[in-house]
Amino acid sequence: MSGLSFFRRVSKGFNEHPYLSKVLVVCAVSGGGLVAYADANSPNAAHAVVPAEGVSKKKKIVVLGTGWAGTNFLKKLDSPSFDVQVISPRNYFAFTPLLPSVTCGTVEARSIVEPIRNIVRKKQMDVCFMEAECFKIDAENKKVYCRTNQGTNLNGKEEFIVDYDYLVIAMGARSNTFNTPGVEEHCNFLKEVEDAQKIRRAVIDSFEKASLPNLSDEERKRILHFVVVGGGPTGVEFAAELHDFVNEDLVKLYPASKDFVKITLLEAADHILNMFDKRITEFAEKKFQRDGIDVKLGSMVVKVSEKEISTKVRGNGEITNIPYGMAVWSTGIGTRPVVRDFMKEIGQQNRRALATDEWLRVEGCDGIYALGDCATINQRKVMEDISAIFKKADKDNSGTLTAKEFQGVINDVCERYPQLELYLKNKKLSGIADLLKGAKGDVAKESIELSIEEFKAALSEVDSQMKNLPATAQVASQQGKYLAGCFNRMEKAEKNPEGPLRFRGEGRHRHQPFRYKHLGQFAPLGGEKTAAQLPGDWVSIGYGSQWLWYSVYASKQVSWRTKTLVVSDWGRRFIFGRDSSRI
Amino acid sequence: MSGLSFFRRVSKGFNEHPYLSKVLVVCAVSGGGLVAYADANSPNAAHAVVPAEGVSKKKKIVVLGTGWAGTNFLKKLDSPSFDVQVISPRNYFAFTPLLPSVTCGTVEARSIVEPIRNIVRKKQMDVCFMEAECFKIDAENKKVYCRTNQGTNLNGKEEFIVDYDYLVIAMGARSNTFNTPGVEEHCNFLKEVEDAQKIRRAVIDSFEKASLPNLSDEERKRILHFVVVGGGPTGVEFAAELHDFVNEDLVKLYPASKDFVKITLLEAADHILNMFDKRITEFAEKKFQRDGIDVKLGSMVVKVSEKEISTKVRGNGEITNIPYGMAVWSTGIGTRPVVRDFMKEIGQQNRRALATDEWLRVEGCDGIYALGDCATINQRKVMEDISAIFKKADKDNSGTLTAKEFQGVINDVCERYPQLELYLKNKKLSGIADLLKGAKGDVAKESIELSIEEFKAALSEVDSQMKNLPATAQVASQQGKYLAGCFNRMEKAEKNPEGPLRFRGEGRHRHQPFRYKHLGQFAPLGGEKTAAQLPGDWVSIGYGSQWLWYSVYASKQVSWRTKTLVVSDWGRRFIFGRDSSRI
Repeated sequence: MSGLSFFRRVSKGFNEHPYLSKVLVVCAVSGGGLVAYADANSPNAAHAVVPAEGVSKKKKIVVLGTGWAGTNFLKKLDSPSFDVQVISPRNYFAFTPLLPSVTCGTVEARSIVEPIRNIVRKKQMDVCFMEAECFKIDAENKKVYCRTNQGTNLNGKEEFIVDYDYLVIAMGARSNTFNTPGVEEHCNFLKEVEDAQKIRRAVIDSFEKASLPNLSDEERKRILHFVVVGGGPTGVEFAAELHDFVNEDLVKLYPASKDFVKITLLEAADHILNMFDKRITEFAEKKFQRDGIDVKLGSMVVKVSEKEISTKVRGNGEITNIPYGMAVWSTGIGTRPVVRDFMKEIGQQNRRALATDEWLRVEGCDGIYALGDCATINQRKVMEDISAIFKKADKDNSGTLTAKEFQGVINDVCERYPQLELYLKNKKLSGIADLLKGAKGDVAKESIELSIEEFKAALSEVDSQMKNLPATAQVASQQGKYLAGCFNRMEKAEKNPEGPLRFRGEGRHRHQPFRYKHLGQFAPLGGEKTAAQLPGDWVSIGYGSQWLWYSVYASKQVSWRTKTLVVSDWGRRFIFGRDSSRI
Repeated sequence: MSGLSFFRRVSKGFNEHPYLSKVLVVCAVSGGGLVAYADANSPNAAHAVVPAEGVSKKKKIVVLGTGWAGTNFLKKLDSPSFDVQVISPRNYFAFTPLLPSVTCGTVEARSIVEPIRNIVRKKQMDVCFMEAECFKIDAENKKVYCRTNQGTNLNGKEEFIVDYDYLVIAMGARSNTFNTPGVEEHCNFLKEVEDAQKIRRAVIDSFEKASLPNLSDEERKRILHFVVVGGGPTGVEFAAELHDFVNEDLVKLYPASKDFVKITLLEAADHILNMFDKRITEFAEKKFQRDGIDVKLGSMVVKVSEKEISTKVRGNGEITNIPYGMAVWSTGIGTRPVVRDFMKEIGQQNRRALATDEWLRVEGCDGIYALGDCATINQRKVMEDISAIFKKADKDNSGTLTAKEFQGVINDVCERYPQLELYLKNKKLSGIADLLKGAKGDVAKESIELSIEEFKAALSEVDSQMKNLPATAQVASQQGKYLAGCFNRMEKAEKNPEGPLRFRGEGRHRHQPFRYKHLGQFAPLGGEKTAAQLPGDWVSIGYGSQWLWYSVYASKQVSWRTKTLVVSDWGRRFIFGRDSSRI
């Protein structure tokens, strides 16, 4: 077939089937070449085909990562004025809060993942996904360096460079071993879907291993000793899931192993679940005790070898060697190497995560945003800007501030420095007047008038309310949505800024700063019991919360497919139990 | 707690909860020690606890393998007079005919597997499973040598030896590469669940790889060229599944890749599916042509390298190098190393599989049975025993055989030599008289009288009807059930033999020989069309057979769990399509 007749056929296809033009647009992104012709010849295709020059005129957003932050950013983004490229080593989004359930087969791995291409394909936007890992960010030249993890037979084309106008870093974090020797080699982690699958196999392996002949009881005991390091929500949930798996399913199939199984939870602090309410912590510790899960508090792991975990008891510093069969390490998060390198490049080497401002812009960079577990918001202190605030508020330039004057900027101040609002709320102050009054003593509201020094004194405690956001799916997801909203309204906000007053500079900020809204947190404790801590310190523990957990987690699934699968997995588990085939 | 008080508590538990005794019996197998006490003190437990000496008196059956043959043997076996030990590297049974569906996610891997412990645990028998691989069979000392594939931290206890009284070898076969260079290194196989999962990942990988930037169209074409080697039912079904996966699901997510995908099926013979009826072969070849699957007949693969497959065209011997991205090798089965070593030991080195007699007993061994893909039945020829048959039939020792005399043994002959029955049926002879008549010419039935030479002549063609059984799940499963039946009735049959006359020796055979009953065969061809060849040369192709296929495969699942899961997987596929997440 000659080139000409091929073009003729393609063109005919276009005229007969206008929807084809849509197919070709996407071909054009990576295939190139055909678009100009289609555009020139097909009257029907014109509305759908973006001319090649048009594509290049759009600003290019590169998104690194397809976790909670990246995926929610992509889901919410709907401005057609951007060209989006997504780069991630995982071509799917995983509903990570269900990973502990995957470790024991309560839910199948495939039920909690959704291909990222599926999530973005119905958008009226140019989104292109590449399965690769970014290994270097060059902020100066606005480029990211990527490498595919797809074997070697690509003739050296495993690496490629992508330009960006805006870079959204949402690469998450990795497990933190705190450089404890032996952890990398001997422990399982629980951050990725593959980790959960590996743990599932390791649990079954332990039971099979312990069923082999010729072993002493001592050895069987060691093999069936499961150690969980870290008493955070993930570690606790895994311990609970494992306990249920063993007692509800595995003892039926491995009755001889029943007496040898032991689960130990090691926590360096004084209590497990210490980010939760005390009532939950207490309940969890008691429940675990009843269940026979050995919770060792104040135990810091100092070394892991093939068959033993060495812990140092806080207080007396005594070192204990615990023989174990399988260990899961879940103590916190650390920085990914590429993020660490990038932080060094931009002079943030002494931080734990990428510092951003309240608009999620990486400090000291242009057009780079960071969100999710790899980032932390460096909230501006009121004290840093206290003179600027005073100056902006003192409209008559009298050198003193009346309550009325301060009232005029209070909304902007609260928006820009949310710690102030929090402070007022926590101190149960009804308004700004109360705060200023405190500095001035008992005078009438109208006659308050503060000098800069008095103003500073009044607000001196405010910054103590600042705290870092936790590294949770909830934060990442809200940040993703927030940032997408900013991009969606970028042009509009350029003309009509939406944000608070700039106290240091002139005018208003383009967007509202990011505000986290805590919706509550669950800690499943096994045996169909869950602890829930909802906003307003509302605590609920038991079967009811478990059903709340079921409904929240089902409804939060990313697609109808995963919703259906997760719910049917739960049903299947109720009816048939969990599968213990070693696949 | 002192040892005494512990025993007291256990004893109390027994008296209060009689069912506990059952738990303890199984503990006793590997835990030991407690049984005697429980037995002596608990009146309720006595009926359930088998005294320790009793266990050792039982004959011990060791089953190697948990595939179709081994699992069906275990399912059917119900004689409590055996102590059964099962050794297999897989702790589950897999419904292998659905493996091609697993490669593309039409069915999930976990939906087609069932833990072997779950299958046997409800039996009133002592069945003990060990996840290990047998690497040596010592027929002389009645021992098998096993090794667990469970890592290394077992202090050298990875290997163990198991004694047996009866050994059931059901280890299956491995893929046969015919020593073609490069196949082991570069091709995927499709025999195990892990293989299917690997293929699924490899398909997604290919699409992700082809979506990377910087590649030429040539390279994208190569990466998306899927080659299936072998036009048997597995290869054909995989090609069809892959075609559906690509065209129903992947093109939506990878629209740019659509024009680069190609599927090629290489078959060394003249036709694909050549064990099927010609109508099916023809239909399949035409359907594949329409679907754009390139079927290359008479193409023998001679070498596989990283990016090219070299084929030799039969006829002209021309060598062609085909660039490819992923290849699946599905050309037939070969002998496992341990079976090959064992065959050498017992002097069967020149065979493809373990030769057994019609009772599935390995030739030249005592108490060893082999079934499934690792075995082949060495059917006794009528001609070998012709003199013995003649002698047995000639009751009056006249030196000649009348039709009436032969009628007296005909049932036994047909039972012992099924080829005779098949011969009569295929030649459309109504009975033995017709056969004998043929040798004697046109005489009345009553006056037929044959000499030994004439008898030989009459039966000379009979053995031509013998053929080896195919290596299918159906054969293996029937053999497993058959052998279990023999074991179940072993004691009874010892006293009252059930089998046909022994022509060479005296008396009757203990059991009926194994008879395979062909129930038909399916070849799914994609696009919701299946070809079915049922007994009596009944051929059906199309949507109807697809639904027959669905119902047969659903009903043949080993448990209610897998039945439910497989059916819900099909439903999920209809509604949501197949998942393409790379996990």
